[in-house]
Amino acid sequence: MAAPRSAPRVGARPRLDLRFLQRFLKIQEVLFPSWSSQNVLMFVTLLMVALLEQLVIYRVGLIPSQYYGVLGNKDLDGFKALTFLAVVLIVVNSTLKSLDQFTCNLLYVSWRRDLTEHLHRLYFQGRVYYTLNVLRDDIDNPDQRISQDVERFCRQLSSMASQLIISPFTLIYYTYQCFRSTGWLGPVSIFGYFILGTMVNKTLMGPIVTKLVQQEKLEGDFRFKHMQIRVNAEAAAFYRAGQVEHMRTDRRLQRLLQTQRELMAKELWLYIGVNTFDYLGSILSYVVIAIPIFSGVFGDLTPTELSALVSKNAFVCIYLISCFTRLIDLSTTLSDVAGYTHRIGELQETLLDMSSKSQDCDTLGNSEWDLDKVPGWPAAEPADAAFLLDRACISAPSSDKPLIKDLSLKVCEGQSLLITGNTGTGKTSLLRVLGGLWTSTRGSVQMLTDFGPHGVLFLPQKPFFTDGTLREQVIYPLKEIYPDSGSTDDERIMRFLDLAGLSSLVTRTEGLDQQVDWNWYDVLSPGEMQRLSFTRLFYLQPKYAVLDEATSALTEEVEAELYRIGQQLGMTFISVGHRRSLEKFHSLVLKLCGEGRWELSRLKGE
Amino acid sequence: MAAPRSAPRVGARPRLDLRFLQRFLKIQEVLFPSWSSQNVLMFVTLLMVALLEQLVIYRVGLIPSQYYGVLGNKDLDGFKALTFLAVVLIVVNSTLKSLDQFTCNLLYVSWRRDLTEHLHRLYFQGRVYYTLNVLRDDIDNPDQRISQDVERFCRQLSSMASQLIISPFTLIYYTYQCFRSTGWLGPVSIFGYFILGTMVNKTLMGPIVTKLVQQEKLEGDFRFKHMQIRVNAEAAAFYRAGQVEHMRTDRRLQRLLQTQRELMAKELWLYIGVNTFDYLGSILSYVVIAIPIFSGVFGDLTPTELSALVSKNAFVCIYLISCFTRLIDLSTTLSDVAGYTHRIGELQETLLDMSSKSQDCDTLGNSEWDLDKVPGWPAAEPADAAFLLDRACISAPSSDKPLIKDLSLKVCEGQSLLITGNTGTGKTSLLRVLGGLWTSTRGSVQMLTDFGPHGVLFLPQKPFFTDGTLREQVIYPLKEIYPDSGSTDDERIMRFLDLAGLSSLVTRTEGLDQQVDWNWYDVLSPGEMQRLSFTRLFYLQPKYAVLDEATSALTEEVEAELYRIGQQLGMTFISVGHRRSLEKFHSLVLKLCGEGRWELSRLKGE
Repeated sequence: MAAPRSAPRVGARPRLDLRFLQRFLKIQEVLFPSWSSQNVLMFVTLLMVALLEQLVIYRVGLIPSQYYGVLGNKDLDGFKALTFLAVVLIVVNSTLKSLDQFTCNLLYVSWRRDLTEHLHRLYFQGRVYYTLNVLRDDIDNPDQRISQDVERFCRQLSSMASQLIISPFTLIYYTYQCFRSTGWLGPVSIFGYFILGTMVNKTLMGPIVTKLVQQEKLEGDFRFKHMQIRVNAEAAAFYRAGQVEHMRTDRRLQRLLQTQRELMAKELWLYIGVNTFDYLGSILSYVVIAIPIFSGVFGDLTPTELSALVSKNAFVCIYLISCFTRLIDLSTTLSDVAGYTHRIGELQETLLDMSSKSQDCDTLGNSEWDLDKVPGWPAAEPADAAFLLDRACISAPSSDKPLIKDLSLKVCEGQSLLITGNTGTGKTSLLRVLGGLWTSTRGSVQMLTDFGPHGVLFLPQKPFFTDGTLREQVIYPLKEIYPDSGSTDDERIMRFLDLAGLSSLVTRTEGLDQQVDWNWYDVLSPGEMQRLSFTRLFYLQPKYAVLDEATSALTEEVEAELYRIGQQLGMTFISVGHRRSLEKFHSLVLKLCGEGRWELSRLKGE
Repeated sequence: MAAPRSAPRVGARPRLDLRFLQRFLKIQEVLFPSWSSQNVLMFVTLLMVALLEQLVIYRVGLIPSQYYGVLGNKDLDGFKALTFLAVVLIVVNSTLKSLDQFTCNLLYVSWRRDLTEHLHRLYFQGRVYYTLNVLRDDIDNPDQRISQDVERFCRQLSSMASQLIISPFTLIYYTYQCFRSTGWLGPVSIFGYFILGTMVNKTLMGPIVTKLVQQEKLEGDFRFKHMQIRVNAEAAAFYRAGQVEHMRTDRRLQRLLQTQRELMAKELWLYIGVNTFDYLGSILSYVVIAIPIFSGVFGDLTPTELSALVSKNAFVCIYLISCFTRLIDLSTTLSDVAGYTHRIGELQETLLDMSSKSQDCDTLGNSEWDLDKVPGWPAAEPADAAFLLDRACISAPSSDKPLIKDLSLKVCEGQSLLITGNTGTGKTSLLRVLGGLWTSTRGSVQMLTDFGPHGVLFLPQKPFFTDGTLREQVIYPLKEIYPDSGSTDDERIMRFLDLAGLSSLVTRTEGLDQQVDWNWYDVLSPGEMQRLSFTRLFYLQPKYAVLDEATSALTEEVEAELYRIGQQLGMTFISVGHRRSLEKFHSLVLKLCGEGRWELSRLKGE
C-alpha cells in the first residue's frame, strides 16, 4: 500500500480523438448542469465583455494613426481632443480587459468547485476511495487528479474559452479591414506568410518534442533517485554505500545534462526561426501597404494622410498576425487541456462505474456511520454474534494462492478471539474480509452486527488520525458528539483520555476544541497513537472491537490495563497479536499456520 | 524516518540582507572557480553578444520610421533598399538574439553541473546523507534542494544575469536618444511616469501578496489532505470514514476557493492599474513629441519627415519604458533567486560544517567500501572478534531515556548472536550503534573488523535496492565485479541466485546485465527482496553478517536453508529476530527487556 509509484509518465501525447470529445462533453455536463445555471450566466457575461473589448481595442489601435494626422497637420485642437479621447478609451479598455480576466477567474473557481465536489461525491461514496487506491492499479494517483489536474484543467479552460470563441470574429473583422486598405493582396500575403511560418515552425519543432520528453523523463529520474536516497538513507548508511550512490547519482545527472545540451543545440535553430518570423511580420505590413501606394492607388492623399494610412495599416496587419499567433498558442493550451481531460475523464468513468457497482451491493452502501440513524444512544438490536464464517477461503485480490482455506468460525458475545501466526500467514487479510474490504473467494462470510457504537469497531494496524481538534480525533469517525449528551460528553472524553494515560495531551493541545495545525502523525509517538486509538474505542463503546496489533508499541502492563478497561466496558475482542500476555483476555485462539492451514483452540484460562 | 513532512513553507519572504550576499558570494565561488574557467569565458561571451544585440535592435527599431520616409515620398528605390536592409538586419538580430539565449542555456547547464556536483561531493561524503536526512531536523528536504532548487537557481540566474548587466547601457543610451528628439521633457516625463506607476503598483500589490501566500498554503493543505487519504485509505475504510472524510475534504476545498475569490476581487484593481499604465505609456510618446512640434521646434520639417520623427520617437520612448518594466520584472526574479540562494546556502553551510566534522573522526571517513584497497580477493587480516562493547549505554539521539544500559559484549568468530526483544526495546538501535550510525552515550563500542568482503556486512531491516541491472543489485555496494574474476563471477552470481531461489528472476530481467527501467521495490515481493539481499550476502561473503529481521517474510524452511548456506560459507551471524526457529543457528542470545535491562544467555543447542 502506498508504495512509492514512479513519477507519472510524461509526454505520452494526449490524443484529440473521439474519446477525448466524449470525455470532454461528459465533463461539460458537470460544468454546465443546466441552461439557467450560474456557470452559463457567467460564461455569457464573459463572451459579451470579450466582444465589447475587441471593439474598444480596435478604436485604441487606431489612435497612433490619428496622431500622425494631427501632428502632421499641427492641429492643436485636434491633438487635445484626440488625447482626451485616447485617455478615455484606454481607461475603458483597461477596465474591460480586467473585467474579462476577472470573469475568467470567477468562472475558474466556480468550475473547479463544481467538478471537484462532483468527484468528491463519487470518490467518498461507499469505499470507492479504498478500492481505487489499494486494490486497483489502472488509475494512477487519484489524489493528484482531484487536487491538481482539476485545478489546471479549469484554469486552462477558462483562459482559452473566451479567446477561442472570439477569434473567428476578430479574424474576419481584421481581414476585412486589411482588405479595405490593401485589397486582396494584404490578407492573402498575411495568410500565406502565416502558413509558411507554421510549416517551418512545425519542421523545426519535430525533433525538439522528443528530446523535450526525454529531458523531462531524465529530470524525473534524477529527482526520484534523490528521493530514494533520502527515504533509504539508513539502509544505505548500513551498507556504507555513499561512494557508490555518489557515482550513480552523478551518472544520472550527467545523462540529464547531456540531453539538455543536445536539446539546446536543437532549440537554437527554432529560436532563430521564431524570432525572424516575428520581426519580419512587423515589416510585412509596410510592404503590403507599399504596393498600392507605389501603384498609385492612393495618389490623391497628402503625405500626412499617407502616414496615418500606413500607421493604421500597420496596426491592422500586426493585429491580424497576432490573432493567428494566439491561435497557435491556443493549440498548446488545447493539448494540455486534452491531457487533463483524459486523466479526469478516466477517473470519472472509473468512479461512476465503481459507484454503480457499490450501489448494487447493499452492505457497502449502508455501512457508513450515520449519526442520524443512531439518535442519542443507539438502539441497535444487540445481536449475540458478530461474525459467522462458513468454510471461507481467503486469498489476496491479485493472487490465486489461498492464504486461509475452509475457515469456519463464529464470533459470539463474550467469546473473545485471538488471532496469531507468522508474518504473511494472512492475519490482517482475515480482518479485511471480516471488515468487508475484501470478499472471500469461496464459502460465506456474514457480518451479523452493524458498524458503529454498540456494534463493531475496527482499530487498524496503522493508527488513523484525521486533521482537526483533539475532540475530533476521539469521536472519529462520528462527525459530531452525541446530540443529546452536551457537556457530559466533555467529561466522558476527559475520563477516557485519562484512563488511556493521555491526560498530558490535553495540556499540549490547550483544550479539546483548540484548532491545531500540526500533523497528528508528527507530534504523537507510536505509543501515544495507540493510546489515542484506544480512547476512541472507549468513547464509542462498540460491542465488538477488532484490534490489529493495536498494542504493539506499548508495554505489557499498559496493554493489560487497556484491555481490562475494554472488558469492563463490555467489549468482546477480536485481536491480532504476537504476545503471549494477550491470551488472558481471550477465550479462543486461532493460529494461522501458512499455506491455508489453521488451528482453532480454546484457551486454558477459560 | 521519512515521515511525511508538511509542505515547505511558502511565502516566508526571502530577505535581501547581508546574509544573502554572503551566501550568494559563497555560491559564486563554486560557479566561477577561477578567472580562466569555462564559465567565465561563457559569461563574457554572453555579455558581448547581448551588447551587440542592443546595437542591432536599435537599428531595427528605426526601420518603421524610415518606412514613413520612403512611403511618404513615394521613393521606390529607397523602399527597395530599405526592405533589403530590413531583412538583413532582422536576420542578424534574430541570430544574435538566439545566440544570446543559447549561451544563457549553456551557462545554465554548466552552472548546474558545477553546483550539483559540488553539493553531491559534500552530501555523499562519509555518512552525511544519513545524518542530514535522519538525525537532523534543521534542513528540510535536502533532496529537493539539490535536485530542484539548484536547477531553478541556475535557470533564473542565467536568464537575469545578462539583462541586469546590460540594462544600465540601454537605459543611458535610450534616455540620450529620447533627449535628442524632445529635449529634457521626454526623459523627465518618462521617468516621472515610471515612478508614479511603480508606486501605484506597489500600493495595489500590498494586500495581494498576503492573500497569495494564504492561497498557496490552503492549496497545499488541500493536496496534503488528499495525499493522506490515499496513504491511509485502508485505515479509513476500516473506520467506514468515507462520509466524515468527504465532509472534511469539502470543507478544505471551500476554504481554499473562498480565499481564491477574495484574491481575485483584489486582483481586479491591480489589473486595471497595470493595463492602464501599459496603454498610457504608448500614448505618452506622442504627447512628449507633440510639445516640441506645437512649440515650433521642428517648424522646418516636411510632413513626411515629421511622421518619420514621430515614429522614431515612439520607438525610443516605448523601448525606454520597456527597459524600466523589464527592470521591475527582474526584481521578481531577483526575489526568487534570493529564496533559492538562502535554501542552497543553508544546505551548503550545513554540509561543509558536517563534512569538516566527519573528517576529524577517522572511522567515518575511512569505512567506505573501496575496491581499490581490496584488490582481487581482499587480504584484510582476519580478526577473531568483530565487536567489543564495554558497559555501553544506548539511547536515541533525540532522547535522554536509555534504551540499553551497561551492555558488555564480545562478538567472536563462530559465536553467532541472536538479539530478541519486544518492539521498542532497542534491537535496531543496538545495530545502529554497532554500525557506527549512532554513538553510545556512555561506555565504549569498538568495531575490530573492517566493513566489506571478508569483513562485516549489514543487511538492514528495510531491504535496499539501487537502480540498475540485476548484477549491480547483487554486487552492491561494490561498484564493479572483482577485477580478476572475469566470467567466473557470472557463474558465482548465478549459483547464489539459484541457492536463494531466485533463478526465475534472471529470466524476468533477461540476463544479468540487461538495463531495466523498473523500480526494484515495485517488482519484487517482500520475500523476493529478502532473498535478493541474501544473494548479496553470499556473493560478498563477509566474515560477519548482521541481519535485522532479514527473513521475516520467508517461511521457516527457506529461512533455515538460507542460514545453512551462510554457515557453510563460514559466516558468523548477528541476527535480530522473533522466531524461535532462529535459535538453532546461534550460540548466544541477547534478550532486550525494555527500560535498559537485558539478559545474555548461551543457547542449549551448543
